[in-house]
Amino acid sequence: MKTIQWRKNKVRIIDQTKLPLKLAYLDLDNLKSMWWAIRKLKVRGAPAIGIAAGFGVVLGMRNSHAKTSLKFKQELKRVTNYLRKARPTAVNLFWALERMERQVFAHHHKSPSFLKELLLKEALKITQEDRDICRRMGRFGAGLVKKNDVILTHCNAGALATADYGTALGVIYEAKKQGKKLKVYADETRPVLQGARLTSWELMKNKIDVTLICDNMAAQLMKEGKIDKIFVGADRIAANGDAANKIGTYSLAVLADFHKIPFYVVAPVSTFDFCLKSGKDIPIEQRNPQEVREVFGKQVAPKNVKVYNPAFDVTPNSLISAIITERGILRKPYERSLRRLK
Amino acid sequence: MKTIQWRKNKVRIIDQTKLPLKLAYLDLDNLKSMWWAIRKLKVRGAPAIGIAAGFGVVLGMRNSHAKTSLKFKQELKRVTNYLRKARPTAVNLFWALERMERQVFAHHHKSPSFLKELLLKEALKITQEDRDICRRMGRFGAGLVKKNDVILTHCNAGALATADYGTALGVIYEAKKQGKKLKVYADETRPVLQGARLTSWELMKNKIDVTLICDNMAAQLMKEGKIDKIFVGADRIAANGDAANKIGTYSLAVLADFHKIPFYVVAPVSTFDFCLKSGKDIPIEQRNPQEVREVFGKQVAPKNVKVYNPAFDVTPNSLISAIITERGILRKPYERSLRRLK
Repeated sequence: MKTIQWRKNKVRIIDQTKLPLKLAYLDLDNLKSMWWAIRKLKVRGAPAIGIAAGFGVVLGMRNSHAKTSLKFKQELKRVTNYLRKARPTAVNLFWALERMERQVFAHHHKSPSFLKELLLKEALKITQEDRDICRRMGRFGAGLVKKNDVILTHCNAGALATADYGTALGVIYEAKKQGKKLKVYADETRPVLQGARLTSWELMKNKIDVTLICDNMAAQLMKEGKIDKIFVGADRIAANGDAANKIGTYSLAVLADFHKIPFYVVAPVSTFDFCLKSGKDIPIEQRNPQEVREVFGKQVAPKNVKVYNPAFDVTPNSLISAIITERGILRKPYERSLRRLK
Repeated sequence: MKTIQWRKNKVRIIDQTKLPLKLAYLDLDNLKSMWWAIRKLKVRGAPAIGIAAGFGVVLGMRNSHAKTSLKFKQELKRVTNYLRKARPTAVNLFWALERMERQVFAHHHKSPSFLKELLLKEALKITQEDRDICRRMGRFGAGLVKKNDVILTHCNAGALATADYGTALGVIYEAKKQGKKLKVYADETRPVLQGARLTSWELMKNKIDVTLICDNMAAQLMKEGKIDKIFVGADRIAANGDAANKIGTYSLAVLADFHKIPFYVVAPVSTFDFCLKSGKDIPIEQRNPQEVREVFGKQVAPKNVKVYNPAFDVTPNSLISAIITERGILRKPYERSLRRLK
């Protein structure tokens, strides 16, 4: 099971909108289909979006007829600007596009065909690096996990959100590998139900003891003393440690604070946006009201009811017990600890 | 539109499991069908469950062949014991059954046919009283609402949860009647989606400005300063003011506390259970895991995933700003203010 891979000159992704009913793959062979796959959440999760963007550039440029590197760079700019608009919040998208651009700019004297090769190499490198990074984060994070811990997670920050292994779920996989028995509660994560559809599916596949709950049940579990730790991913982290993640994460962080439960964010360095001083500046994607009026295509609310549907929220640094990256565990004050990552 | 009514010797209810796709009525003419209607949430909401239980007794006893009042009382006991098991949390069910029994016991020398009439009269009286009580609560509650307030509510505590008008939504209807312009956010309220299916439908029908959100978005709205007050209903309130209500209510109360937003519970005196010292003693219904694995009949999670599905949670008195009853507004310390209701 591979979330995203380069295969026979196409990008093969799992169509995550079909899970858990069907494990279906999509072979993407052009820029536009990649844009839609990102937009429509067929591939999602900040690190996976970064990888998808990298491959998106490859698909967008490989048929370029540019004769000069100057022309090639101009076309590249159009391609990256297009992909940039697929989704606004996860910074890994922009990070990956900039990495792809940097390769071309660093070799601007080379021929277009050389540059095309270079782009593919870089996209594959981003993918391979993500695998390694997830494992490193997993090892750091697993140090925070004790035997028999019960962990709550939100959305899907697993193999399906990355090249494989995952961020928050990577910690769980690694802890299990170390022989620590664990139990996981997964928020279903409305409206798109990544927890119900993806996390519970992925954890069951990996033989992790998982129990599914509705988002509004988490507080009750905490009150009953059933949750030891919370691990979530992130889509963008500002320079002060404020972290944007799937809608509902901020809610969990407040509840964790009230119940004195450690709240951990697991994210690679590519998720940090040092240009933003605080979380206030992180753009929050507002998605289609139909996602709330419908569930997985089934109408559940009046057709014309007004809806508020932000895809993300921002958890202030004060509510985050630690941020786990591939370079180590960051603690408060984050303004200082994050500076070391730059 | 009437949630529950006595009509042509049958109990006509709105089948709330069909809303908002279809406004369908069910005519119940026997005890068992009423039991199932309560169990399957075709009629739901603490006060409406009380009314349904009253009519359930009427349906269960009207074909009694008992020749003596002693025999009649024995049969009555069987009927009430049966209805008692329809659902465990909302105390209005038990309260109504006891009221029905009390009528018969107070007239135990009368003939079975007289007692049958008496039961119907009492069930109709419970219904009529509920209408009046809702309006009285509405008036008390509306005093807490200011012009242009933005109110958040959870589940459905409206006309569909009562004879009509509602508890929490009754406050909103009354405030509107008094000319106060309001805006309402409704939590969709997973797993059964009473907010999406019932509250948004009911408020739109009554021309109240309503916006639907997923449960996990409430914290974000509070953080944005968009919520002025929270009004919810209750299914059972202990002698110390701890209040059981739809799962997710406790979560809202903690979030309200963090964001310093007033959190109000609106419930008739029939919802108070003075036998229970605190909320710890309130039995919490655990419902079918399929409610979480499916949404409105559509599968959204792996078929065999473990699920935790409590239908209610208990909000501790410390997080409740006030409890609005038909006899006035109760404030802390609730141990004392509730004693006056007994």
